[in-house]
Amino acid sequence: MIRSVKLDGGLLRNKQRVAVEKMLPYQWAALNDQVEGAEPSGCVNNFKIAAGKAKGEHVGLVFQDSDAAKYLEAAAWAEQVKHDASRRKNVTQMIKLFEKAQMEDGYLNTWYTLKEPGKRWTNLRECHELYVAGHMLEAAVAWFRTTGDRSYLDVMERNIDHIMTVIGPEEGKIHGYGGHEVLEMACASAYEVTGQEKYRALMTYLIDERGKEPNFFDEELNSRNGESHWSRNWPLSYFQAHKPVREQTDADGHAVRACYLYAGMADAARINGDDSLTAACKTLWRSLVDKRMYVTGALGSTNVIEGFTFDYDLPNERAYSETCAAIALVFFAQRMLRLEPAGEYGDVMERALYSAVLPGVSEEGDKFFYVNPLSVWPEACQKNNDLQFVAAQRQPWFGCACCPPNLARLLCSLQNYLYLQRDDGLYAILYGSSTAQVETPAGQISIRQRGGYPWSARQVFEFEGDTNEPYSIFFRVPAWCKKYEAVLNGQTVALVCDNGFVRLNRRWQTGDKFVLDMKMEVRFVRANAAVRADAGKVAVLRGPVVYCAEEADNGANLSALTISVGTKVTAQYCKDLLGGVVALEAKGHRELAALDTLYGDAPRHIERVKTPIRLVPYFAWGNRTPGEMDVWLRRED
Amino acid sequence: MIRSVKLDGGLLRNKQRVAVEKMLPYQWAALNDQVEGAEPSGCVNNFKIAAGKAKGEHVGLVFQDSDAAKYLEAAAWAEQVKHDASRRKNVTQMIKLFEKAQMEDGYLNTWYTLKEPGKRWTNLRECHELYVAGHMLEAAVAWFRTTGDRSYLDVMERNIDHIMTVIGPEEGKIHGYGGHEVLEMACASAYEVTGQEKYRALMTYLIDERGKEPNFFDEELNSRNGESHWSRNWPLSYFQAHKPVREQTDADGHAVRACYLYAGMADAARINGDDSLTAACKTLWRSLVDKRMYVTGALGSTNVIEGFTFDYDLPNERAYSETCAAIALVFFAQRMLRLEPAGEYGDVMERALYSAVLPGVSEEGDKFFYVNPLSVWPEACQKNNDLQFVAAQRQPWFGCACCPPNLARLLCSLQNYLYLQRDDGLYAILYGSSTAQVETPAGQISIRQRGGYPWSARQVFEFEGDTNEPYSIFFRVPAWCKKYEAVLNGQTVALVCDNGFVRLNRRWQTGDKFVLDMKMEVRFVRANAAVRADAGKVAVLRGPVVYCAEEADNGANLSALTISVGTKVTAQYCKDLLGGVVALEAKGHRELAALDTLYGDAPRHIERVKTPIRLVPYFAWGNRTPGEMDVWLRRED
Repeated sequence: MIRSVKLDGGLLRNKQRVAVEKMLPYQWAALNDQVEGAEPSGCVNNFKIAAGKAKGEHVGLVFQDSDAAKYLEAAAWAEQVKHDASRRKNVTQMIKLFEKAQMEDGYLNTWYTLKEPGKRWTNLRECHELYVAGHMLEAAVAWFRTTGDRSYLDVMERNIDHIMTVIGPEEGKIHGYGGHEVLEMACASAYEVTGQEKYRALMTYLIDERGKEPNFFDEELNSRNGESHWSRNWPLSYFQAHKPVREQTDADGHAVRACYLYAGMADAARINGDDSLTAACKTLWRSLVDKRMYVTGALGSTNVIEGFTFDYDLPNERAYSETCAAIALVFFAQRMLRLEPAGEYGDVMERALYSAVLPGVSEEGDKFFYVNPLSVWPEACQKNNDLQFVAAQRQPWFGCACCPPNLARLLCSLQNYLYLQRDDGLYAILYGSSTAQVETPAGQISIRQRGGYPWSARQVFEFEGDTNEPYSIFFRVPAWCKKYEAVLNGQTVALVCDNGFVRLNRRWQTGDKFVLDMKMEVRFVRANAAVRADAGKVAVLRGPVVYCAEEADNGANLSALTISVGTKVTAQYCKDLLGGVVALEAKGHRELAALDTLYGDAPRHIERVKTPIRLVPYFAWGNRTPGEMDVWLRRED
Repeated sequence: MIRSVKLDGGLLRNKQRVAVEKMLPYQWAALNDQVEGAEPSGCVNNFKIAAGKAKGEHVGLVFQDSDAAKYLEAAAWAEQVKHDASRRKNVTQMIKLFEKAQMEDGYLNTWYTLKEPGKRWTNLRECHELYVAGHMLEAAVAWFRTTGDRSYLDVMERNIDHIMTVIGPEEGKIHGYGGHEVLEMACASAYEVTGQEKYRALMTYLIDERGKEPNFFDEELNSRNGESHWSRNWPLSYFQAHKPVREQTDADGHAVRACYLYAGMADAARINGDDSLTAACKTLWRSLVDKRMYVTGALGSTNVIEGFTFDYDLPNERAYSETCAAIALVFFAQRMLRLEPAGEYGDVMERALYSAVLPGVSEEGDKFFYVNPLSVWPEACQKNNDLQFVAAQRQPWFGCACCPPNLARLLCSLQNYLYLQRDDGLYAILYGSSTAQVETPAGQISIRQRGGYPWSARQVFEFEGDTNEPYSIFFRVPAWCKKYEAVLNGQTVALVCDNGFVRLNRRWQTGDKFVLDMKMEVRFVRANAAVRADAGKVAVLRGPVVYCAEEADNGANLSALTISVGTKVTAQYCKDLLGGVVALEAKGHRELAALDTLYGDAPRHIERVKTPIRLVPYFAWGNRTPGEMDVWLRRED
């Protein structure tokens, strides 16, 4: 059992600190409608009204409650990072509101309590009742895990008990599931923490029932005479309800929903030892990673369904790439690792974390991207209405504010992603300076990790505690690393990388010191030629970090820049740049705008001048003077 | 005076024949709801109902009447091409319906007569009453010019008289103008044919009033309490009503409306000898041509407003490039030529005609593009909802069927675009095998033109008739022609090209033969570096024709093709290809899809194999097996 992990240095720790110290107070203010210039949330006040503590009308969307739940979950994880009495007061105050807002029968949802009291459970397809319950349950589990305080979990147990009287396989119950998945994962968490069978049963039911014929969502829609809560009816694939989950082969529909489902499926596959579900998870993983994922780890190629389209359709400027979808991919990858320790899951997880989750929040923690395109021309976002869904700068808040609190709960729980314990040993997945207390069958050890990750990848592990038997620790060697050296107590050890991990199996002793020195080089990456949008272009990566060119460094019109693959690139840590990042510099060219007119004869050879090109981590873009940004650069032949 | 021109061979004649023989009967059937599989138009039936000849409800859009008007205008021009008794019967039958549908006071518009009788003239901003009147008047003028039958023009004169009792500068009248321009141009036509001052007055008023403060559209909207006929309120620039027209400097808003306005402005500038309006026309022309026009001559960079966005924003796959906007540009260019005979106007006119108008109709004349993107990946149009406005194949008809009848009226009137007579002589603008009868101050001549334009540009002009004094004929030498030879009666003559024209000033005699042999070469054209979408790419043109690569010739994934600028290109006329076109063949490369995965290390040099690349005229694309299409090809360094 991993008793505790604490990040204590480096980039992830810095981001976590921003989340704990800036995002959480900011978001609490936002949920309480106290952020000037931001769209009012109404979220906390809705619960106050439902609890009889305030007057007024419900404000916000049908899933507004989930914003509070995500904040509470983040606050729970933040307690592991740094205790804060006032934040803890916020949580206990909210739990009291939940207790009062909860109906006699266990129902808890301010939209239906305040706004449509007669319409509970009539629109599972669209109205997020199970989604809200899922986030509330996940938060309750996190709070219980961190503090041992059961009060929130008790509220949610009553809520789940109620749900199970309404939904389930038995005659007279709704044979349904939620249009926006998340309860599946939450039930897995609750089951693993409490051991209570009902959570496992509900998780299993929701997954197995999904997409069966006759289709529940279609029948439900018919029983509502086709009426939609939203402006249009989405196809079943949007909800991953077009087929039973074991028959789904392509990552389809709304990207956040899809990955939340897949993560829940992976939980269920592991908990239930379900081979057919494991196979489905692997198939969907391959579709997603091999055909439908941006190089940043972002997901979603269309604004309209906020999701997947078809293989190799990865437009850059109109990428949707919702921050929440990247968070969902981190969840999915983490569950796949639990199911099967393949390094690839860790590779994708860190790609998504560094380059699709972290871009979602500003350096200061108070502005957010909902959509993360890989190419931004701010004037086009502003003046071409086809791109009106893209904000070229991070925003203080959103009417649909799913991303900021989702970011907060992931960043506050990053300590959970460093190590993974399985029967065969401990796995080091994400790297970062930290301390960890781990109970092994052979005794307790603590691990002090030091290193400059992700700017360098020489990670030093110092051990305390002795094991009475050999115990295996597996260290992930990312696929980007072509060469590594392992040194144990001053002696080079030859470790073979197997499925993405090197293994040390030994009786650990206080004073053991292991150094894994992974050579980090700048890589020029191309996309499969089937990706039309990236033809003739390269992305530059270093270690787990995807880089981009910004106008702030390179002037306007980044499309005029070209770079030669393999050109010498200098990597330099700049402590005053963007909160401290490694920036890259290379020599490239800038095509000349030799035309006064719009079109003209093309010269035989492109006229261009040498120019330095500076690249910064994509996650840090948009923190300086607003301007253009490109991940994919035109390559020279 | 140009008495008559008849196209009698070559591409334009073929397209005109398709329009006359196929499109017109097809469109008459469509307007009468007799095309299977096409959305019903209701257009003719609306007039029948309004005339008391049928029962039922108005079908279609608020401007549905204009489809009939455009058909009638096309039918009028078609009479110049080839008399057809049954088509003529259609027209006279429609004129009788108009007479019966017209109200006592001269009002004529089936939407308001049938559907909203009390709401006439309450929504000039959005509801197209003046637009419908404009198309009706333009058709009436064309019918009168061609046949001498005044009955339709009489209907429209009563209609205009009525409009002038409602709208105008006098107290008590609406000080307004139409949200969709076209009446301006129509009034100019009516004025020039009838000499009646009222048409000139209305034209001038509509143009001068537009965009003045306080803004009429805003006031009208307020008086309707902000209610919109459509799903949203467009900004004033959408209607070119954000500033007085003489203060407008950028081509803005809905592209069809914009060019209809500019064409009307150019008419008014010429008719009224208005220098400030001429200056405005030239400024807007420069904005449009130097900053906001696709290489095909297409206009409109966004689906949302169907129009202009900002300088150099010319995305290819989500180009709007409405067929009607290119038609509008032809009108604008023609009016600019009348205002000032600069070859550039002819160059743009022929670019737009060949590569932005002609693509709108299939080889058979029965399927149409509304939107003409420069890059099409059919799977993306089908599966990525952000591109749902793009049809990857021509459609049989449209709910908003503005483009097909607009195409018909332009194609049936192409004879009007070959020559232009001005005080200083006759100008040959568009080339094509034809005969023309021209009355000059020095006597009547007829010109028989022969040549393979646009596949070759050796045009032979044979003259009949003698002039009693020297008379100038100007022949346009397009900017794409770098070298030409002029031979008069067997003798080479040294003619200097001045502002796009060479001039022959002589006493013409029967038997005169002039050969203008313009060397036509394949050109590789690049866009200004500020056009992000075309960076690293070239378009291939030959003469006035823009070429494209199609999947039918080059296999799937055109983005993997690269071509070297200046590479040898073979041009060959293929009489069985796409109705007879010159196709181009060159050697290029295809990048290999060496990756099984989505992303991988980029090799230092692009791995590619030699491949022949075949290009066909862009206007002819989409007439074979559906597939990808690209105008802009990746260039090799």
